[in-house]
Amino acid sequence: MYTCSIERMKDKIETFSKYGDAGHGGITRYSLSEDALKARKEFEKRMTAIGAIIEVDDVANIYATLPGSDPDAKRIVMGSHCDSVKNGGNYDGILGVISAMEVLETVHEHNIPHKHPLTAMIWTNEEGSLYPPAMMCSGIVCYDYLPEDIRSKFCYDDMMVSKSVLDGTKTFGEALEKSGYKGEKKYRLSPDNYECMFETHIEQGPILEDAGNSVGIVDCVLGMFNYRIRFFGQTTHAGTFPMPKRRDALLAASQALVYLHEEIDKLGYSDLVYTTGEIVCHPCVHTCVPDYVDVSFDARHEDPKVLAKVMEILKSCTTKTWAGCSCEIEKAWNRDTVYWDKELVGYVKEAAEEIGVSHQYIHSGAGHDAQFCAYMLPTTMIFVQSKEGLSHCEDEYSTPEDCTNGASVMLHAVLKKDKQ
Amino acid sequence: MYTCSIERMKDKIETFSKYGDAGHGGITRYSLSEDALKARKEFEKRMTAIGAIIEVDDVANIYATLPGSDPDAKRIVMGSHCDSVKNGGNYDGILGVISAMEVLETVHEHNIPHKHPLTAMIWTNEEGSLYPPAMMCSGIVCYDYLPEDIRSKFCYDDMMVSKSVLDGTKTFGEALEKSGYKGEKKYRLSPDNYECMFETHIEQGPILEDAGNSVGIVDCVLGMFNYRIRFFGQTTHAGTFPMPKRRDALLAASQALVYLHEEIDKLGYSDLVYTTGEIVCHPCVHTCVPDYVDVSFDARHEDPKVLAKVMEILKSCTTKTWAGCSCEIEKAWNRDTVYWDKELVGYVKEAAEEIGVSHQYIHSGAGHDAQFCAYMLPTTMIFVQSKEGLSHCEDEYSTPEDCTNGASVMLHAVLKKDKQ
Repeated sequence: MYTCSIERMKDKIETFSKYGDAGHGGITRYSLSEDALKARKEFEKRMTAIGAIIEVDDVANIYATLPGSDPDAKRIVMGSHCDSVKNGGNYDGILGVISAMEVLETVHEHNIPHKHPLTAMIWTNEEGSLYPPAMMCSGIVCYDYLPEDIRSKFCYDDMMVSKSVLDGTKTFGEALEKSGYKGEKKYRLSPDNYECMFETHIEQGPILEDAGNSVGIVDCVLGMFNYRIRFFGQTTHAGTFPMPKRRDALLAASQALVYLHEEIDKLGYSDLVYTTGEIVCHPCVHTCVPDYVDVSFDARHEDPKVLAKVMEILKSCTTKTWAGCSCEIEKAWNRDTVYWDKELVGYVKEAAEEIGVSHQYIHSGAGHDAQFCAYMLPTTMIFVQSKEGLSHCEDEYSTPEDCTNGASVMLHAVLKKDKQ
Repeated sequence: MYTCSIERMKDKIETFSKYGDAGHGGITRYSLSEDALKARKEFEKRMTAIGAIIEVDDVANIYATLPGSDPDAKRIVMGSHCDSVKNGGNYDGILGVISAMEVLETVHEHNIPHKHPLTAMIWTNEEGSLYPPAMMCSGIVCYDYLPEDIRSKFCYDDMMVSKSVLDGTKTFGEALEKSGYKGEKKYRLSPDNYECMFETHIEQGPILEDAGNSVGIVDCVLGMFNYRIRFFGQTTHAGTFPMPKRRDALLAASQALVYLHEEIDKLGYSDLVYTTGEIVCHPCVHTCVPDYVDVSFDARHEDPKVLAKVMEILKSCTTKTWAGCSCEIEKAWNRDTVYWDKELVGYVKEAAEEIGVSHQYIHSGAGHDAQFCAYMLPTTMIFVQSKEGLSHCEDEYSTPEDCTNGASVMLHAVLKKDKQ
């Protein structure tokens, strides 16, 4: 039974962690930045070394392909992204790239027979840290296959002129031209030449660690909705305006957040997650009573009936007066639960069983490029245990053993698919 | 009985409201901006027209003085500031300047005899909107007289290189040089040549309006303390991290703010004001659980015993765990209640009675240049009724009648002082 190499895996983790090293354990590696270009060069160097053919599409997605024995067989692709958030860790995204490389390296090392060409790929700008939105280039590539409500949020031309959130002057289109990675549209991932897609990713949650399992067999991406909750009061002077006449929007938001958490927790669904993570306050000055507060509300669950109950509670906020302030809500977006391809999920499960890697079924609560891909190709994901479930921070960690287990599971799932 | 001119007052309000007119009823007139320089020119033009002598000190404070009949008498000064916050109103600060001008114009018009020279002045950069801190130039001028704990916050050199919060490149020192208003240090307000100070200001609260009084006889500036309350949690992914393990710093802050308001309100002091007006949240992203929230806490009351009780409640926050997060507090600053000069307060009261302007005693909850001045010279303030108590916003309004009443009361208070 072939397994991936823990030594080679460790070496790749160490090497890629240098590109964008922020000096305290993590990385800042914005898409198409100098550091991200170094990571791309490393990917190309290692893939070329095992005889893979490099192709780059018009939005800088890179594909490294080992030919298969059947000239008519479509490619099986594995991949993720190599860009990070600010002060991110050494695993989110890049682990999926490294794992895909590791699968190709293992196939090459042991000369494992396979009919289908096998491709390792890097998606451009998954995080959208510098140029929003997140999952930009999988959105562009899969555009024609996306449901209308997702497509309506996507405009290729807008994205090309999407401004850097750091300096505000450079656009994604300009960064793309400058990168030297603007390839040809004909190389884009498409059902014409690709059979299916696998993405390995850190779990970003503590479920696998708590259960003592190395790998997660991801069965779906949770349905979710995202709203803004807004409170409207009146700004007055902190030193001169009597308390009973105040209409304090921050106190209003505080009361409503406490209410929301209490009411939603009463529903008692242990697998429901919801988050009030962003707050905007105006004028946000210590000597002024706030007149406007805007809070984000994000809820995720597999079952739309559960989300509907949460929605009822959210709506009830608008029927109340909070600290003299009115409350409105507005939908930002929502999505239904997306189930991964059952055949591929089955191969992942069988692979984990056969090679004896501890595993369990798990849902994905986060967004990944694989999600857009799922509208175009049979797709699935494999999760690797994350220490304390931490991600998007420098403390991200997965053991080399778990990372190698994830790659080995992907290898065998790919080989099972290859045999069909 | 002399009274100030409502027509002349209206004309000045209208004229000055043009300098920095933001197009929707209010002004944005940052200190030393082009619009603020226009307001200064208007002040000089009108004061020169009645024979006042213009002097400018080294931090651009302007003094317009009508000579008095006694060559040995020190000057009596009246004034306030002409700079505003962003999208401020047409009354905060500038009303005190206009009222001082109006007193001089009335004295000149009716040739009212007076021993002391009478000075109308503009303080530079009271709001600190562009170049923090607020009350910068009264702090500089009164520095040698301030208590040590206030002085320790003040450094002249730091202020000169205080960066514009808008473009970050220009410093206060550079703006001062460029303004053409960097005069001579010898012209600074000082006890050597000034007898006492009056400042007229809008109330910035609804107390006078609710009581139906035109003018407030200000007796003190409330003691206050200002703290930061900080909550420390753990950031995790909104879609992947189970609720019971979360340590959400924004939920923690919400619970603590609700608790603080409930507990402090239970104390039952109707004249206590406290404000939680500023919030900083990290990472403040809708897909992340916040790991850090910092909220301002500002409490003001005349009686230090009341403030001590509030302090106890604030401290009790740190002994609790809020949504799994720890809580710390840190003092930003505090000040004791400052009582205005009793003699001057008495003159203001007598003046209001004699000319038949409706009035009452009132505390000041806000900070004013007069506060720093009070450490150096006998000082007092007069408040004018503000519509709905609104200030630092475009809706600021005081009727021409109330504004003129304020100026007339100041005129007679000044004349009473002049007679001593």
